[in-house]
Amino acid sequence: MNDYAPLRNIRLVLCEPSHPGNIGASARALKTMGLERLVVVQPKTFPDPEADARASGALDVLRASRICDDLDEALAGASFVAGLSARRRDLAPELRDLRTAAQEMIAAASHEQVAVVFGTERTGLSIDQLSRCHRLVRIPANPDYSSLNLAASVQLVAYELRAACAAAAAALDTLPGADGSRATHEDLEGLIAHLEQSMRATGFLHPDRPGRLVLRMRRMLMRARVEAEEVAILRGFLHSVIDAANADPHRR
Amino acid sequence: MNDYAPLRNIRLVLCEPSHPGNIGASARALKTMGLERLVVVQPKTFPDPEADARASGALDVLRASRICDDLDEALAGASFVAGLSARRRDLAPELRDLRTAAQEMIAAASHEQVAVVFGTERTGLSIDQLSRCHRLVRIPANPDYSSLNLAASVQLVAYELRAACAAAAAALDTLPGADGSRATHEDLEGLIAHLEQSMRATGFLHPDRPGRLVLRMRRMLMRARVEAEEVAILRGFLHSVIDAANADPHRR
Repeated sequence: MNDYAPLRNIRLVLCEPSHPGNIGASARALKTMGLERLVVVQPKTFPDPEADARASGALDVLRASRICDDLDEALAGASFVAGLSARRRDLAPELRDLRTAAQEMIAAASHEQVAVVFGTERTGLSIDQLSRCHRLVRIPANPDYSSLNLAASVQLVAYELRAACAAAAAALDTLPGADGSRATHEDLEGLIAHLEQSMRATGFLHPDRPGRLVLRMRRMLMRARVEAEEVAILRGFLHSVIDAANADPHRR
Repeated sequence: MNDYAPLRNIRLVLCEPSHPGNIGASARALKTMGLERLVVVQPKTFPDPEADARASGALDVLRASRICDDLDEALAGASFVAGLSARRRDLAPELRDLRTAAQEMIAAASHEQVAVVFGTERTGLSIDQLSRCHRLVRIPANPDYSSLNLAASVQLVAYELRAACAAAAAALDTLPGADGSRATHEDLEGLIAHLEQSMRATGFLHPDRPGRLVLRMRRMLMRARVEAEEVAILRGFLHSVIDAANADPHRR
């Protein structure tokens, strides 16, 4: 296997970028590091001449970028998702610094689809967006001014992914948990929706206040890196829960 | 000592940048990693609103940047100089990849002034500019498209410098050769000019074809990381050479 083959299984996802220049510059950043899969969720202005100009010799990557209506569409098929954020957040996924996260992503990308998600220029990723990530990735930076430009963050991530490929090609096969097939993003979303439905069916979840409960469950499942077979088992169980709840005349 | 104190002894030098946006974006890249010394040699358009816009919250670093007429002025006081280049060059300084070079620079910056030099957007560093560097630094990249944007290169260098600080703070004092005071850029330029003058005086150097000989000497001296005291000794010797040459009626 080519040392850099894992890069082909990694997509970079920009959420609602405001500046078309950042989309073009991101395409260039990807291509310089041998990545080529750029996904853009609801760009404000795109296509745009500024995007083309900043893409420079990476117009091919820019033209091949996929435009999506929402993050779930952008993550379809991915089973390991990392989100960039400069801020610590309540109920966030497990935190890794960029270099460590890149090693994890390259290990995963040898046998599954990986996505790296970037938030808007002004506000970063929302709690809802971050809740779809297995990892929260932090770029070590000046604590007094950690506001990296979006395309600059993309460049750093792409660089560390390439560096992790070069360094760890030999160790790829030794990672634990590489056997079972991981659940894809849509598998997991189906499971979480099913779980919430079950919780409502049993009356455990107050219909008007789902609150942080579902978010906490989601976080746990993300951290577990659930496998496809486990999703099938859990959903079988949840079916049975809902059947039981609907059949029970005394349920709360 | 603060782990990040060496960053204060490192300046980043942009040679003849064409796009003011890249100057602003470079200022931002520096500040996000805790660096603050930006030097610009003969910018095409500066100051400029585009530079201010791309600097974002790093306007202070941009405003404090030093504008120079030539590279020698920009390098004054520096005793360890690294130049970025994507290309291999004939007679280039010793090559390091970025991560290794960053470790060297941080080790040096604990006790001397360090400069990192970036060439123009289109053509990079010239042979003449590279000849002033102790190291040629390569950013590992896609061999089919290694054309990084200037500010993106600055971001990667700044990031690796910060990472090297974090990783190696403890090892700073153990480096060999940290005792003798290194020759500054101007010490070394004075020595090389003196050497060339001596070579002409003895007739060793053909007046019309200095050619690559001086360049080779320069390269050797750069690689040696000459100390200030050694410069004094060599120049004392060269004085004596010139005196002797001028006194010798039979010289070629």
